Amino acid sequence: MQTVFKNALAKYRVVFLRHGESQWNKENRFTGWHDVTLSQKGVEEAKAAGQLLKKEGFQFHQVYTSVLTRAIQTYNYAAEEMGCHYLPVTKSWRLNERHYGALQGLNKSETAQKHGEDQVKIWRRSYDIPPPPLDPKDARNPANDRRYADVPKDALPLTECLKDTVVRVIPYWHDHIAKDILAGKNVLVVAHGNSLRSIVKYLDNVSEKDILELNIPTSVPLVYEFDSNLKSLGSYYLGDQEEIRKKMEAVAKQGAKK
Amino acid sequence: MQTVFKNALAKYRVVFLRHGESQWNKENRFTGWHDVTLSQKGVEEAKAAGQLLKKEGFQFHQVYTSVLTRAIQTYNYAAEEMGCHYLPVTKSWRLNERHYGALQGLNKSETAQKHGEDQVKIWRRSYDIPPPPLDPKDARNPANDRRYADVPKDALPLTECLKDTVVRVIPYWHDHIAKDILAGKNVLVVAHGNSLRSIVKYLDNVSEKDILELNIPTSVPLVYEFDSNLKSLGSYYLGDQEEIRKKMEAVAKQGAKK
Repeated sequence: MQTVFKNALAKYRVVFLRHGESQWNKENRFTGWHDVTLSQKGVEEAKAAGQLLKKEGFQFHQVYTSVLTRAIQTYNYAAEEMGCHYLPVTKSWRLNERHYGALQGLNKSETAQKHGEDQVKIWRRSYDIPPPPLDPKDARNPANDRRYADVPKDALPLTECLKDTVVRVIPYWHDHIAKDILAGKNVLVVAHGNSLRSIVKYLDNVSEKDILELNIPTSVPLVYEFDSNLKSLGSYYLGDQEEIRKKMEAVAKQGAKK
Repeated sequence: MQTVFKNALAKYRVVFLRHGESQWNKENRFTGWHDVTLSQKGVEEAKAAGQLLKKEGFQFHQVYTSVLTRAIQTYNYAAEEMGCHYLPVTKSWRLNERHYGALQGLNKSETAQKHGEDQVKIWRRSYDIPPPPLDPKDARNPANDRRYADVPKDALPLTECLKDTVVRVIPYWHDHIAKDILAGKNVLVVAHGNSLRSIVKYLDNVSEKDILELNIPTSVPLVYEFDSNLKSLGSYYLGDQEEIRKKMEAVAKQGAKK
């Protein structure tokens, strides 16, 4: 396929996709590394993303996902529409959602009522203040999960601020994803609100303050174009721009009291 | 997980899974490398295989599939039941179904009426007589399919007898699947009637004559146990043995006139 770039100077591009609505997004609970499945709406969102990518002529050589089911399901449902199940898919914990520590499982509105909306916004959106960590003995400690059996226990988080997420995601971007893009591969990355925000922060050199206000809508393909040095030349969302604006607002409101 | 072997001498095991019924199985057409999706029955079969593997306590570290959609879908639906979407899945054309050459797309009963049941049985089940090859200029030539873009064109078949399939599958078994098993990984291989038959022929040292009569039922987990040198100590199917016997008979009858 001949790649058509929006920017005449572009040499490479990548497509990011945040997973569709999960069961816990629906219930407005802090999810983090808890492994939930897509809601029916999330399944439909994933299929719609696949249809859109197909319609716009995107073809990929390589897919990256986190090791969380909701991201992998999003790819699977999109692939069903695109007819690209055969693509190599590399799954890494480094693309996981931000770990929400002891908040995982709590309803966001309840947490807001208990701790105050400001504190919740700090935990959700501060750059360097992590939520209270999980007790290492907590059954939810990732070290107890066999999907992380090949990761040294002390590399696995018990909580994370966005800064921590950036620190674990960017090496993976450099060593794997960027490497594939520079090798000429069309890459699709299916991940999470905060792992994608981490990459966007790095690519666009977004400030620690501004990144808190940046909301990536679920299951809308986000295309980045790059020059020959993989410097970002800008990005755009595929699809109906008014609908995307509404989705971004909905994400921003999730932390507000209900 | 503590692996419980049937054979006290066993040190390793592997699970093979033939994909569930596809649209073309249903229509009784020669499929080969043509990329069809699962039928609704095939989806249900795949889910049932996942439920069975879960119930029997199987946990995997690594999955191998062909690059054909029906095998990958079978894994995806089984994984949905087992909750193991996070597993690494390696996809290779070497695990594809036998290439049926110019017969691909023909109805098996029609072919039997036209060429005679004996000729069809020869093409379906002879060890070293391939069906008529595709014309290299045929749109169905795998060299035209982007999923094989990273395979040298002259390595891709235009037709295959079972012997050809064995010759392309076994190096992959040695270099990748066996290597993982010897490294202590629990491996699931989701593939096709003839690519699995190729491996079974090798593992059990089945004669060229007997392999023609060996029918692997769709979507029934087939467990092989091995000694420390990866020598087969025997195999068994998981599930209701009477139902499995009926499935094997149904596969055997596919070549008969209707």
